[in-house]
Amino acid sequence: MTKSVLQMQTPDEAEIIFYEAFMHGDIDVMAALWADDNVICVHPGSGVISGYESVMRSWQHILEGSAHMDIRYRVENKMVTDELAVHVVIEEMLNINSVIAVVVATNIYKKFENGWLIAEHHGSVVNTEQKSETLQ
Amino acid sequence: MTKSVLQMQTPDEAEIIFYEAFMHGDIDVMAALWADDNVICVHPGSGVISGYESVMRSWQHILEGSAHMDIRYRVENKMVTDELAVHVVIEEMLNINSVIAVVVATNIYKKFENGWLIAEHHGSVVNTEQKSETLQ
Repeated sequence: MTKSVLQMQTPDEAEIIFYEAFMHGDIDVMAALWADDNVICVHPGSGVISGYESVMRSWQHILEGSAHMDIRYRVENKMVTDELAVHVVIEEMLNINSVIAVVVATNIYKKFENGWLIAEHHGSVVNTEQKSETLQ
Repeated sequence: MTKSVLQMQTPDEAEIIFYEAFMHGDIDVMAALWADDNVICVHPGSGVISGYESVMRSWQHILEGSAHMDIRYRVENKMVTDELAVHVVIEEMLNINSVIAVVVATNIYKKFENGWLIAEHHGSVVNTEQKSETLQ
């Protein structure tokens, strides 16, 4: 997989492109969004996936199975410093306008010389049958 | 709930105290570990819990139900800058030495004048029946 170069000036810009690539099943853009080293991905239910090549294989697997996935998302929280940004995002996975799953993601962006890249994505399914905010 | 003061000089120190408080069901120590503002917690299966009071209520609920919970944990990855630290931790929840659940946590620590405090904890259960690293 050849990694093309994206220069993203803000974490917000990287995040918008991330969800576009996710929805459009675009593995080349996904590959360009991630940092080269020290990357981590946790998909809903998965363990820790470490390292660029393993993380990309996981996304290739997901994107091949979910081309044209519709995702409605909103950013719930941001912590931003000069070097790192942490966004908490609610993702609603849609199938013909019905929500089939709600996922909470912690997305972590890191600043490099050429701009911001994704360093970590941790997604977990919200158990929508448990409405209380205090459930473990 | 009165918040006592802990001065933790490193994210590692905060993390050790966090897991001790979790295991011992110590809500006072847990309360002292978290930052006052802009905190986020996602427990396995839960949605986003925002704000200090709501996060503490969720921990009170969990700790009341899990006093003397044994947790074996290891830090899988660290990203540390002057202001923020992101640790990815594998937590094995034990009952009489048997692993009853494996959780991946992203723990985020923020540096304040008096030391490091927890700003976010995002935990998700690893589906141990799905062994492939590429599963969504």
